[in-house]
Amino acid sequence: MNGAQPGLGAAHASSGAAILDVIRAAGTISRVELTRATGLTAATVSTVVRRLIDEGLVVEAGRAESTGGKPRMLLRLDPYARYAVGVHLDHAGITYVIANLGGAVVARWRRPGAGADDPRDVVARIAAEIATTVTRTGIDPALVLGVGVVSPGPISMTTGMTLTPPVMQHWAEFPLAAAIGDATGLPVLLDNDATAAAVGEYWSGGVATGAACATLYMGTGIGAGIVVDGTVYRGRSSNAGEIGHVCVALDGPECWCGSRGCVEAFAGPAAVVAQARAAGVVLPGRGVSEDFAALARAAARGEAEPMRLLRASAEYLGVAAQTLANVLDLDLVVLTGPSFALAGSLYLPVVQERLARSFFARGAHPVRVTISTHASEAAAVGGAALVLQSELAPRQAGTRMVVEALTELPTGA
Amino acid sequence: MNGAQPGLGAAHASSGAAILDVIRAAGTISRVELTRATGLTAATVSTVVRRLIDEGLVVEAGRAESTGGKPRMLLRLDPYARYAVGVHLDHAGITYVIANLGGAVVARWRRPGAGADDPRDVVARIAAEIATTVTRTGIDPALVLGVGVVSPGPISMTTGMTLTPPVMQHWAEFPLAAAIGDATGLPVLLDNDATAAAVGEYWSGGVATGAACATLYMGTGIGAGIVVDGTVYRGRSSNAGEIGHVCVALDGPECWCGSRGCVEAFAGPAAVVAQARAAGVVLPGRGVSEDFAALARAAARGEAEPMRLLRASAEYLGVAAQTLANVLDLDLVVLTGPSFALAGSLYLPVVQERLARSFFARGAHPVRVTISTHASEAAAVGGAALVLQSELAPRQAGTRMVVEALTELPTGA
Repeated sequence: MNGAQPGLGAAHASSGAAILDVIRAAGTISRVELTRATGLTAATVSTVVRRLIDEGLVVEAGRAESTGGKPRMLLRLDPYARYAVGVHLDHAGITYVIANLGGAVVARWRRPGAGADDPRDVVARIAAEIATTVTRTGIDPALVLGVGVVSPGPISMTTGMTLTPPVMQHWAEFPLAAAIGDATGLPVLLDNDATAAAVGEYWSGGVATGAACATLYMGTGIGAGIVVDGTVYRGRSSNAGEIGHVCVALDGPECWCGSRGCVEAFAGPAAVVAQARAAGVVLPGRGVSEDFAALARAAARGEAEPMRLLRASAEYLGVAAQTLANVLDLDLVVLTGPSFALAGSLYLPVVQERLARSFFARGAHPVRVTISTHASEAAAVGGAALVLQSELAPRQAGTRMVVEALTELPTGA
Repeated sequence: MNGAQPGLGAAHASSGAAILDVIRAAGTISRVELTRATGLTAATVSTVVRRLIDEGLVVEAGRAESTGGKPRMLLRLDPYARYAVGVHLDHAGITYVIANLGGAVVARWRRPGAGADDPRDVVARIAAEIATTVTRTGIDPALVLGVGVVSPGPISMTTGMTLTPPVMQHWAEFPLAAAIGDATGLPVLLDNDATAAAVGEYWSGGVATGAACATLYMGTGIGAGIVVDGTVYRGRSSNAGEIGHVCVALDGPECWCGSRGCVEAFAGPAAVVAQARAAGVVLPGRGVSEDFAALARAAARGEAEPMRLLRASAEYLGVAAQTLANVLDLDLVVLTGPSFALAGSLYLPVVQERLARSFFARGAHPVRVTISTHASEAAAVGGAALVLQSELAPRQAGTRMVVEALTELPTGA
């Protein structure tokens, strides 16, 4: 966080982040319960909580019901103490959200996409949009922690789009994070849409703390984000979760990724739209997103061919969910992203049925399948959640995995 | 660990395990370097190292080359200070290894399998085998840390085979860990073959510390073990890595798992043996393992039909490796297990070629594919490694994932 920002300061660098995270997860909690939950001493909890209250991050929220002695004072986050901006940058549209410290969306808006424009012009537009809306909503700009920028993967988290994303070839090598950081004066985090959506789902309360969860994200492509026990799984180069590019037919059609028979090549929105056109379904022809939306509306009206095509796509998404569940031993799959926002009610029962029937460890536990409550703007919500996560729960941001000791961790002194 | 055992005692419960793990990974290391690597104070390192030396776990190994001042004393594990037993329990054969603290195998032997025998008789045989060999090799029984028992999954890690494994239905509900613990007087850990093999690969030095690695295990079935940055990934119920049961053809053959078109149903040893028999290849007919071995020998002699069948199987294993790599963003896939020990040289180039061509993030980094140096007894070696891991590096045993702070972790005081 830069010097002008009221980041979490000293709290960030020590036990403050841990305490904040426990308070956030608990909703309201007393100092005594905090001591128990964190393993910190009562004196440390008391000192850190006092500092968090001074910084405005935590407030006292009334007394708990008495269990005999003096009722305990409950603590909670002040959700309006800080804000984060999420930007979902796509060629077809740019979605913005501003979320508060509690993960609630306080503003959301959408503007035309990056299209074929020069990346520098797009970045200037993004910075102006953020500044305008922060002012218009009356948020103190000094309380904005940062910007999470989300784009169809693959992406390099540190430098920007150094890996060429499929639909925005001219953004290759563009230093996205640095450019947006310069233009906004805010810290910037980057991630791909599916991973960000998973963080957003976790942060907004859709995923229980201990769950092994994947979000199956369908925008124009298909990807997955993996959050296990509150931790993002990123893999070697932050390209984990590429479930759209697992092979479901060895002699299947060629995919843009260079492989054959990928789930996305059979069942992604672009494939389904092409299949519909080949079958004579009349579509607006203004891009995959709009055509897929038209197809989803036609299916919802009960038109036979659109229904058949979307059901066939849903079978493949069911296979994708089964693959994720069998490889990762999941207990929750969340369908999210704009395409599931449009057609999720058609996909959901098919994916549920497939997992009930075919999940390998179904004898041990079921896999629940749900639709995100903010599927259409999941990536932008995820962008904001990335910023909150890196501030409030840096140990869960997922750059490296370590495992908590069965016994006590070495404590450094 | 039970009271009669010289476990790692106090060291286990605090910073000792962390220091032991760093010494193990480093080979030899000085106290100053240990201080740097662990973040512990020089005083703590000094105290803990003295205790580890007193317990016989660590020895001084001569002085480092001088870089000006007094040359530093190097520390290393005493590999013969403790031992662990690994048992791979299968219906066709039981493989045993004894490994020392350094992960080296000091004894390995094989006996007839569990077959249709009463589990209690099998457990009595296992206990007798362990006792006899420990005595014969002159190992002090008091130095044996425990037994890691490995079986084809699914398995319940805590209680035993409460999930019915495919080929040993009559072991369902048998309290395997408790029975072997009672019979041997040793602590017992359970795991499935593929996961144990991954731990064994990591422990025996086949996997670099920071790697995102999966072992693709082929015995009579096909599974995978996942080790990322030294940590085992287990999922919700220790059934992660079921790559043999991902669907590669929606209308493919039925699989014993209840799904259709699974990799194992197309390409597992049982499927390949059945395909060979249908094609008129003469096989001994003494079970899948022996028939697959005969087929692998025929292919090695250049016989056309066996070569064609194994190459077709290898294509599916290539798809399985691609799926693992794309979901987990791997940089290493290790082929291991008895079937790869037999036919790995035929599978390896096919899998390598597939990943070079089809791994999604190949623009970011390659995925290396190797064959384990102990592929035939990988599960038993993994069993012993599980015990060493739980003693020496409990934070990496994989019961829960947490993520290291980008900044400093809360230290508890």
